Amino acid sequence: MSNSEFQQVTDSAVQPSSGPNPYGPNPADYLSNVNSFQLIDSTLREGEQFANAFFDTEKKIEIAKALDDFGVDYIELTSPVASEQSLKDCQAICKLGLKAKILTHIRCHMDDAKVAVETGVDGVDVVIGTSKFLRQYSHGKDMNYIAKSAIEVIEFVKSKGIEIRFSSEDSFRSDLVDLLNIYKTVSAIGVNRVGIADTVGCANPRQVYDLVRTLKTVVSCDIECHFHNDTGCAIANAYTALEGGAKLIDVAVLGIGERNGITPLGGLMARMIVAAPEYVKSKYKLHKIRDIENLVAEAVEVNIPFNNPITGFCAFTHKAGIHAKAILANPSTYEILNPHDFGLTRYIHFANRLTGWNAIKSRVDQLNLKMTDDQVKEVTNKIKQLGDIRPLNIDDVDSIIKDYHAEFTTPLLRSLRGEQMEDVNTIDIEEPASKKTKTTQ
Amino acid sequence: MSNSEFQQVTDSAVQPSSGPNPYGPNPADYLSNVNSFQLIDSTLREGEQFANAFFDTEKKIEIAKALDDFGVDYIELTSPVASEQSLKDCQAICKLGLKAKILTHIRCHMDDAKVAVETGVDGVDVVIGTSKFLRQYSHGKDMNYIAKSAIEVIEFVKSKGIEIRFSSEDSFRSDLVDLLNIYKTVSAIGVNRVGIADTVGCANPRQVYDLVRTLKTVVSCDIECHFHNDTGCAIANAYTALEGGAKLIDVAVLGIGERNGITPLGGLMARMIVAAPEYVKSKYKLHKIRDIENLVAEAVEVNIPFNNPITGFCAFTHKAGIHAKAILANPSTYEILNPHDFGLTRYIHFANRLTGWNAIKSRVDQLNLKMTDDQVKEVTNKIKQLGDIRPLNIDDVDSIIKDYHAEFTTPLLRSLRGEQMEDVNTIDIEEPASKKTKTTQ
Repeated sequence: MSNSEFQQVTDSAVQPSSGPNPYGPNPADYLSNVNSFQLIDSTLREGEQFANAFFDTEKKIEIAKALDDFGVDYIELTSPVASEQSLKDCQAICKLGLKAKILTHIRCHMDDAKVAVETGVDGVDVVIGTSKFLRQYSHGKDMNYIAKSAIEVIEFVKSKGIEIRFSSEDSFRSDLVDLLNIYKTVSAIGVNRVGIADTVGCANPRQVYDLVRTLKTVVSCDIECHFHNDTGCAIANAYTALEGGAKLIDVAVLGIGERNGITPLGGLMARMIVAAPEYVKSKYKLHKIRDIENLVAEAVEVNIPFNNPITGFCAFTHKAGIHAKAILANPSTYEILNPHDFGLTRYIHFANRLTGWNAIKSRVDQLNLKMTDDQVKEVTNKIKQLGDIRPLNIDDVDSIIKDYHAEFTTPLLRSLRGEQMEDVNTIDIEEPASKKTKTTQ
Repeated sequence: MSNSEFQQVTDSAVQPSSGPNPYGPNPADYLSNVNSFQLIDSTLREGEQFANAFFDTEKKIEIAKALDDFGVDYIELTSPVASEQSLKDCQAICKLGLKAKILTHIRCHMDDAKVAVETGVDGVDVVIGTSKFLRQYSHGKDMNYIAKSAIEVIEFVKSKGIEIRFSSEDSFRSDLVDLLNIYKTVSAIGVNRVGIADTVGCANPRQVYDLVRTLKTVVSCDIECHFHNDTGCAIANAYTALEGGAKLIDVAVLGIGERNGITPLGGLMARMIVAAPEYVKSKYKLHKIRDIENLVAEAVEVNIPFNNPITGFCAFTHKAGIHAKAILANPSTYEILNPHDFGLTRYIHFANRLTGWNAIKSRVDQLNLKMTDDQVKEVTNKIKQLGDIRPLNIDDVDSIIKDYHAEFTTPLLRSLRGEQMEDVNTIDIEEPASKKTKTTQ
């Protein structure tokens, strides 16, 4: 499909009602951080575990700078013990002097911690598997051993004057008593954050809310959450975690990570701008999302998903006649996101059999032709008839409109034709965000 | 990345704990339909409103048959008044004699209803905008007019002996009292289902749960829900709707629809198999998801998103060393979904710098080479060193392993080399699901 089938609409969105934002924090959630959340971007840690990812030093630095410019609060890097280059890259990124705090992510082990604290990071994220699955099949340790290791590592990292987070792994398949016990222990010795991780992507939103709310009664530190997207709930789980009182969300650009990844940065921004528009718009450079996504997509050799929030090629395209009619009157009718907040544009797709006469009337006006409403309705029927037979492009529609117009205004048309053709060619049709190359398989 | 970097793992997933499924319906949700939900597939209605969609009659029939074979409960079709061919296609699909019930989706207007009931459909889905936005900028009618039209249309459709659903549009931006009022009215006159529609994709999961629970106290009929995915919550919202007592969820293959679409069929199956494994596996042909997605993706000229639930090319690929180690011991450690349930296979990605010695040991075993654990650890370090410099493929790894092995077993190696090479070439590496063509931009 060529982009020339799209018709750009000018923005005149006005909320018909004022008053508090009904999508803002629920007043009953008195611990909510929906209006005060922070982002830990893990594109350079979790994202490096994505099947296609290989970032050389230069690319890592480029991504880190782009994330910093966007405004993420933390940037998490691969463990310096993963490989020799991982250590060097961690050191190099720490030296960039970014506004974002730099973290590295290690196993709960002194061998790793001793290397991590010497890299120059602002903090260390420690993780250990607490589910029966991981205790049995991964590290084979019991909860007492986990607690003992955690205390040793946490006190060591704290002694170096940098931040320390302790996270369980596979938290939603861990024993609740075990979990609360270890979190209470590490909170008491002064960990900066505890982490909940849905490592296998099994959690659902109300489970997340309940666990976060329970944990808030046990720890005095901040809560960070990490959600995999295996069952498609990573954005929603992040949102309900914030409602429950979690403060920090792990994200990756396009959600890249193990398997099909984690909460995507862009998708979470779509969710959060609806709930906390002022906070999100003032804190993050939303118009940079498209560039950051393109940067990472190119680096890991994937396409932006056609249905990606915000930057999917049709995220702001309206097609059915009744949608087009209302969007032309007020874009908020069928949009909760304003494309302009992200440096993007909306489109009316009017060259198809589902089109309506309001969309065609708008096109007639753009072509600077004069028709009555009844005439527009008649030509709309002609367009729908051709649209029933085959896919249409904008030229098809314009030809039908102009032929129909010529039937009743031939003398006038002849004198105007040159000017009209010029109008057609200068209508401002922008390329949708991620519609790079072709999407045909 | 070539698929030859992946190592297939045999499946020996065992749950370490028995007892009730912790991801099953929450016992506190006594109205939950998580174990008894139904699907209304709208690929041929909502999906036709996707920017790229043009389905001719043959393609519509192919998609309808595939959905019926998969096991969806309802198939929803574009309004027969949308165009002449839409009417003919609706009639043709009704004549196929599918197991799934056929619905068509119309405006709340007698002109549309009179055409719809004559097409042969099993039911009619009626929708009208109830939000202030739509009442002001779309149809311009007040709630009394809406109620009056709804009653007239519902009674007319019921008189024809077919099912009738009444849905509000943009339900989450509608006045709650208006909503409950109209739903109560239509329930009282015997509508089969009422529909809640998050037309702009603004709703969040706990809002959805609350609205469904409230509505359950007002109506005696089933509740159907329709969620757009603008803010990435369409799957999670569907799940919490079922928890709250909704019975039917609108889906589309790959979620195609207006803008970036609605709850995707495959993604919802990923969510539901975790919660209700027996119900989902007995009712739906899950191994057909890949084929149906490919059918629709090809028809609308998009790629399967790289991070699609279930069928994304790396949805069952494990990369980091600690993940690979545990997956080799028991796949359930890092998988909540079993790829075999979907006719798919998991992979260990061991040719990279994040690899660990357990993954390499497994590869050494596959190559039928004998090494001590210390030797495997040493060769793993050599692999990680090369992986620091550039992306690796399986041949790189095998060369390093074999060269290293040759250092201490040269006489043995020489005699075995022919046989080993044969092993290498016959290792069963399957192509990941959607890794069709290249994903490079």
